[in-house]
Amino acid sequence: MTFVKETTDQPSPKFVPATERIATFDQDGTLWVEHPMYTFVMYSLERVPVVAKAKPELKDVEPFKTVLSGNREAMAKLTTADLEKILGAALTGMTVEEFAVEAKNWLETARHPRWNRPYTELVYQPMLEVLHYLRDNGYKTYIVTGGGQDFARMGSDKVYGIPPEHVVGTASATKYGYDKDGKPTLTKDPKLMLFDDFGGKPEGIHLMIGRRPYAAFGNSTGDQQMLEYTGAGDGARLMMLVLHDDAEREYAYGPAQGLPDTKVGTFTQALYDEAKQKSWTVISMKKDWKRIFAFES
Amino acid sequence: MTFVKETTDQPSPKFVPATERIATFDQDGTLWVEHPMYTFVMYSLERVPVVAKAKPELKDVEPFKTVLSGNREAMAKLTTADLEKILGAALTGMTVEEFAVEAKNWLETARHPRWNRPYTELVYQPMLEVLHYLRDNGYKTYIVTGGGQDFARMGSDKVYGIPPEHVVGTASATKYGYDKDGKPTLTKDPKLMLFDDFGGKPEGIHLMIGRRPYAAFGNSTGDQQMLEYTGAGDGARLMMLVLHDDAEREYAYGPAQGLPDTKVGTFTQALYDEAKQKSWTVISMKKDWKRIFAFES
Repeated sequence: MTFVKETTDQPSPKFVPATERIATFDQDGTLWVEHPMYTFVMYSLERVPVVAKAKPELKDVEPFKTVLSGNREAMAKLTTADLEKILGAALTGMTVEEFAVEAKNWLETARHPRWNRPYTELVYQPMLEVLHYLRDNGYKTYIVTGGGQDFARMGSDKVYGIPPEHVVGTASATKYGYDKDGKPTLTKDPKLMLFDDFGGKPEGIHLMIGRRPYAAFGNSTGDQQMLEYTGAGDGARLMMLVLHDDAEREYAYGPAQGLPDTKVGTFTQALYDEAKQKSWTVISMKKDWKRIFAFES
Repeated sequence: MTFVKETTDQPSPKFVPATERIATFDQDGTLWVEHPMYTFVMYSLERVPVVAKAKPELKDVEPFKTVLSGNREAMAKLTTADLEKILGAALTGMTVEEFAVEAKNWLETARHPRWNRPYTELVYQPMLEVLHYLRDNGYKTYIVTGGGQDFARMGSDKVYGIPPEHVVGTASATKYGYDKDGKPTLTKDPKLMLFDDFGGKPEGIHLMIGRRPYAAFGNSTGDQQMLEYTGAGDGARLMMLVLHDDAEREYAYGPAQGLPDTKVGTFTQALYDEAKQKSWTVISMKKDWKRIFAFES
């Protein structure tokens, strides 16, 4: 990769000191599968029956009623506001340790409907190789996801070699307090602190990292601003977008390049045109990736 | 240090894997001088004339009028709400790059009124040694400050060997946008995201790091919750508080142990008693530190 050579070879005019080598990766659709629905949203929806058991009054209230009905068609019509209500109810009120136990347990037991494998196996082999290659060259790799930060931190180390402190995501507040034995606790609170998508991605990078990345990887309009912000820095910068154009081995969606439209991981033609105009690399899953998942032989 | 031996020696039952070795340090009064006023507040106050030049309408409005008067007695009576107004006006509206240039410039030129030296020279030599010792043993060292995060990130690497991404502080939002040439910008916004003091310290640690520290260092009631949270973890944990009891070589304030009361870096008797009861280490600057500053011979 020319970019890595240019930024890590000492005599290069584009050399970047090791401490400044930051690379940021969107997660859903860039590092792992996001269709038919973001894993984080799947988790939240599957938490609803548990929540409704503890708070039976929710059973007759929308959008919980729809989720509990299990009616996939009705669920597909839930709005962003509905989803926010569900996330607020399903993922708050517990301590951060309780959340970690439940989320880890779910990640170990839940299965993707198409491959019947844990979501953590549906990571893209070529992207794992990029992560390793960059780290071998002194880059610190970060996840910058629109999904929940606490959720994305579970298993990021095992799956990607990315420690929790290198995960930036949509983050709610926590509240410091004490349990009945006087032991300090942090309880998850519904108050949204950072919406880490679109312009929120560079904002989150500034908040959590405080440096402009030298490389950024994404796959949708939610990553556009992160790539623009990365590209606006001096010297060599690397911007890459994954185009999902392989319905056979994974999924095909855009609507860029005539691919089917989608609400999950939208890649518009305008983003495609911006990428071409700014010399960002667009990766075709179909043409550029020999193997998609590690489990494929 | 027994703590470091216990947590880094492989056969020890209290061994901590290198990836989990996190140590957090308050900055003001723990790593550098905070009297007569927090450096970050000094910076904000000195920014007011610059701001008033750009926005002359502020000249006749409180609290700006008082700050511009230069009347130290009147300034000492400013409330927290006044200071928040000043911070909001003095440190927002510019891009993060513009902020960095101004803050760095101030840190290079401003002088502490007592020693007539840059604030960055008023760091405690024994704490620099602790930072190095912990890092030499695989600990990642973080600043967790009630002061402004963007401000604390300036020069943290040079002064403490702590990179900007390891600085957690009180943080305002930024806003992603484009300048007149279409170049992406992040502009500092007055909206407070994280108040990183008292209970906000463990909350900030969870938000930015996502792991409970194994060691935490502070000097005031604003650090109490960070030390409690650290101490509530399993295994070996190290909690230390610096007591400023050396008026001759630095400052003396509490009001713990009969020291003079202060609003800047308050160390109450209740905190002192909690420290003793929980076996936290209280460092006496007077008795325990042979040298306070690096510039002393």
